[in-house]
Amino acid sequence: MTSDQQPPVATTVVTTPSEREIVTERVFDAPRDVVFAAFSRPDLIPEWWGPRNVTTVVDRMDVEPGGQWRFVCRGPDGREDGFRGTFREVTRPERVVQTFEWEGMPGHVIVETVTFEDLGQRTRVVNTSLFHTTEERDGMLASGMEQGLAESYERLDELLARFGSA
Amino acid sequence: MTSDQQPPVATTVVTTPSEREIVTERVFDAPRDVVFAAFSRPDLIPEWWGPRNVTTVVDRMDVEPGGQWRFVCRGPDGREDGFRGTFREVTRPERVVQTFEWEGMPGHVIVETVTFEDLGQRTRVVNTSLFHTTEERDGMLASGMEQGLAESYERLDELLARFGSA
Repeated sequence: MTSDQQPPVATTVVTTPSEREIVTERVFDAPRDVVFAAFSRPDLIPEWWGPRNVTTVVDRMDVEPGGQWRFVCRGPDGREDGFRGTFREVTRPERVVQTFEWEGMPGHVIVETVTFEDLGQRTRVVNTSLFHTTEERDGMLASGMEQGLAESYERLDELLARFGSA
Repeated sequence: MTSDQQPPVATTVVTTPSEREIVTERVFDAPRDVVFAAFSRPDLIPEWWGPRNVTTVVDRMDVEPGGQWRFVCRGPDGREDGFRGTFREVTRPERVVQTFEWEGMPGHVIVETVTFEDLGQRTRVVNTSLFHTTEERDGMLASGMEQGLAESYERLDELLARFGSA
């Protein structure tokens, strides 16, 4: 990696614009097609999805309207956590709407809208999570998701930098 | 069936107490345990669930927290519609919280809270459906769900009457 491809020290901005939403916004130092691929290719998800000490396996990921996804995260203690959902809309490489459900709390379903904004050599990713209730939203905020997301996005920075240097 | 076991001409009351809810309320002429059984026993669901000209098959129905359910309805033209969800809470014979999703609109998930109130020889069933958005709620109202529900509940009346006469 040459110095001009060095990713910036990027900040994930987390806001709660309504009682049932969490919005995260992050700029990545890579073109939109590349960032979209990192979010939508089953072979790339394990490279960045989840904290560093967790191994993520893609059980299924059928990226089309009505398609299912399921990831299993295995922690250092061997504990496994499943996450799953359904793709509702897939507009490559601009926008994905999908549901998100942690199998530890089955039936509590979040709708995530992820948009990918073309900034030339950079891409802004905005993720809007709509919860059924404020209580569920606040539970997510209390779960340490901000730290987990920041770590995932740092890993994604590193993955994108490897693409850039390839 | 003797005349004093004749079901009343029952009315399903449908209200929209908030922007994202539909609440239906109906009194059935049977004790709570019997009504709860009709809602929770896989062998009884096909007896009443759906309009009269539709055949409902229970593909799965694991009535416990985290358990899945899936029903397939086959219409007179052979068209099949799948419905599915996850049980979140099961408090026999008082209350069930479950998700509800029509497979024709995957990822649009409703949370249904069904309560069974003991009125002695009768039971009041209140179903509160919480939608993610007002648009999804209004789509359900426009789908003819009131008529479909009324017909299902008439069939349930008849099933409960058969229990009563057994």
